Amino acid sequence: MKKILLLGAGRSSGALINYLLENANADNYILRVGDRSLEFANDKTRNHPKAQPFSFDVENIEQREKEISTADIIISLLPPALHILAAKDCLKFRKNLVTASYISPELLAMDDDVKNLGLLFLNECGLDPGIDHMSAVEIIHRLKQQGAEIKSFKSYTGGLVAPESNDNPWGYKFTWNPRNVIVAGQGTASYIKNGKYHYIPYNRLFSEITRIEIDGYGKYDGYANRDSLAYRNHYGIENIPTLIRGTLRNEGYCSAWQVFVTLGITDDTFDVADVENLTYSQFVEAFIPASVFGTTLEERIARLCNIDPDGPAMEKIRFTGILDDKKIGLKKATPAQILQHLLEQKWVLKANDKDMIVMQHQFEFSVEGHAKILSSSLVVKGDDTVQTAMAKTVGLPLGIASRLILNGTIQVSGVHIPVLEGIYKPILKELMKMGIRFVEVEKNNG
Amino acid sequence: MKKILLLGAGRSSGALINYLLENANADNYILRVGDRSLEFANDKTRNHPKAQPFSFDVENIEQREKEISTADIIISLLPPALHILAAKDCLKFRKNLVTASYISPELLAMDDDVKNLGLLFLNECGLDPGIDHMSAVEIIHRLKQQGAEIKSFKSYTGGLVAPESNDNPWGYKFTWNPRNVIVAGQGTASYIKNGKYHYIPYNRLFSEITRIEIDGYGKYDGYANRDSLAYRNHYGIENIPTLIRGTLRNEGYCSAWQVFVTLGITDDTFDVADVENLTYSQFVEAFIPASVFGTTLEERIARLCNIDPDGPAMEKIRFTGILDDKKIGLKKATPAQILQHLLEQKWVLKANDKDMIVMQHQFEFSVEGHAKILSSSLVVKGDDTVQTAMAKTVGLPLGIASRLILNGTIQVSGVHIPVLEGIYKPILKELMKMGIRFVEVEKNNG
Repeated sequence: MKKILLLGAGRSSGALINYLLENANADNYILRVGDRSLEFANDKTRNHPKAQPFSFDVENIEQREKEISTADIIISLLPPALHILAAKDCLKFRKNLVTASYISPELLAMDDDVKNLGLLFLNECGLDPGIDHMSAVEIIHRLKQQGAEIKSFKSYTGGLVAPESNDNPWGYKFTWNPRNVIVAGQGTASYIKNGKYHYIPYNRLFSEITRIEIDGYGKYDGYANRDSLAYRNHYGIENIPTLIRGTLRNEGYCSAWQVFVTLGITDDTFDVADVENLTYSQFVEAFIPASVFGTTLEERIARLCNIDPDGPAMEKIRFTGILDDKKIGLKKATPAQILQHLLEQKWVLKANDKDMIVMQHQFEFSVEGHAKILSSSLVVKGDDTVQTAMAKTVGLPLGIASRLILNGTIQVSGVHIPVLEGIYKPILKELMKMGIRFVEVEKNNG
Repeated sequence: MKKILLLGAGRSSGALINYLLENANADNYILRVGDRSLEFANDKTRNHPKAQPFSFDVENIEQREKEISTADIIISLLPPALHILAAKDCLKFRKNLVTASYISPELLAMDDDVKNLGLLFLNECGLDPGIDHMSAVEIIHRLKQQGAEIKSFKSYTGGLVAPESNDNPWGYKFTWNPRNVIVAGQGTASYIKNGKYHYIPYNRLFSEITRIEIDGYGKYDGYANRDSLAYRNHYGIENIPTLIRGTLRNEGYCSAWQVFVTLGITDDTFDVADVENLTYSQFVEAFIPASVFGTTLEERIARLCNIDPDGPAMEKIRFTGILDDKKIGLKKATPAQILQHLLEQKWVLKANDKDMIVMQHQFEFSVEGHAKILSSSLVVKGDDTVQTAMAKTVGLPLGIASRLILNGTIQVSGVHIPVLEGIYKPILKELMKMGIRFVEVEKNNG
């Protein structure tokens, strides 16, 4: 019997483990699930006869080597910086590896060795990165086969709350690593539009938004991701005049978040002084210059950030509790950690809440002299707070890829992301069976 | 005969080398000057009979150990990250060490070992950090001895161009590492005022300025330094209600620099795409959102940054040449590198130009029931483009400290900054002899 080794059984592993266990009998494998917390591994595998949960310490070389050397394929859900430990052992013991994380330069440097051994280290095989790559490249390859000239590619993804569970003014609840939401966008975003490069510094990122409409789900705010330009190479569209990638949030989220950015309270690089004794309102007050007049904190924020003191952005700010005279209750924290601590109490996915993943690709192209527009949209809702849309869309591509590598359907070697037909085609096919399918609408342009 | 070993003979070493050579006969030492460039070392020592210039490679362990083991004291002007190499050898061979750089955590960790061997590693002994520490703490100790209660300490320092050499609209020319000027202030500035903490994020740093007047020299803009709060411990004024440290620039500099910050072109973390083919104006245009209207680039900048298109800030921007249709001429560069490349052509200290260092400490205190204000100001002008005020005020404290350690006047052991009376008192005394003296004005407050 074959053996799949899953390293890490945290937040996003539930859907992946379920999928792999459901197919364990048919494919005749056992699933070993190792986590620092044996409890996590036990909880997720629920005494399934094909599951072997165990306590795993990635720093324990002996254990790591024993586990990897006796497995047939390894899925790493370890923190991104630790994948390299698994990767080195996979090389040593000649095992395939699958992750949902961005390829690190260190991992990419292994490409020749991995190729020479006929192995596959498949990365960026979750949602974003992951499904975004596969679904976009599938269309790009199809359009190219039709002889189309692609003029514009815009792609937006958001991990949101489903409309029926949307009961807070932000339209947002945490479904993945909260820290990543708090520090999102720091740096400078870059994209290309009509052949011209565009840059948006963090200080203006959430005020320069694009309105995106998803049929049947309404309008969303899209803010630009940091790294759109790199995707020209990844997707083989080096000379495309327009390429923008962005993140979706509910309407109004971005203009309220811009207030936090302008205040400066998303900074994660220094510890706030005397945080033990501060209230949230005192913390915010410390970021407002004395020269900004106003009798209330709300008035001063409104004046500093140039928003309506009675408008929807201020309503969102007020909802967070950050204007309250309530002790923060942390001993040591950066501004970003304070904000996260607060929002983790407010942006909670409740027992009956459902999350929702939205992804939309927009293409402009011309074929045989005809200008066309193609939009391809994906909406996935979660079942509950464990089988979230986020867990499904991150976990299923990982699980599917692992099965397809194990059963020989995917036969590629090297260090890769899923942009080769031999990789994305069978994965997308299986994802469709699992209900993860894009809806395409093609129109004439103008 | 004793031997002083100077490691590094770059930009700021001229005044230091001159000072040490002038005193070499009286104190009976020779000065060995090692630099990666033998030419630099030769140029600066000009065949002085007490000077021994040599080619020095800090990574050459054998050479480094030989030099350090045979010297009596080591002055390191190496890049800050390399001090630790010299420090380790100083510990091994039991030698004293002097630097003008901030103490690194690695260096501070050597404190016990240094103390046990009766050695002194004296750091932050240049201008800022250096003279700022010594002059401030001298007053703080004096006020404390008078039984004064210090309520407020504000301190501003600027490396500027002398009024007679000020022939550009910024009132600024480079006299030290240009990169540090371009990326100055990135992060969040923190200070305390009337017992309340204040934070200024980088996106607003250059718009929240304080006007500082220096008698006989006019008004300057002061913007807040990152790290004011740490100085409460450094200076033994843990409970002071107001402590602000800042940097001085000529009037109007900051509001013009704020335009670069708002545009986003001081970012040093990503490479601008296709920079080879860009003109400066195209580079700037890429940072302006399409939603900002205006028939000219100047109009669009003015609208985005909320400045007068015909005002003094725009005059400064225009002067830099960044609005010109001229090729940048770099192959690979971050926005900050492009800006530096441009300003290095514009902010040049010309042959007959003089630079000027300005430092001002402002104290508010009460003694025997009387509220008082004390200001202490230093103005130092350069002699020429080599014996700059910057080179003198960085180099002389280093040179003086080294002589005083060598001749036993300073007898302190451990890893230190110059805030102990036994260190700062004799150095300040010698600095006065060299014309580096503060002017104090004390008044009743209100």
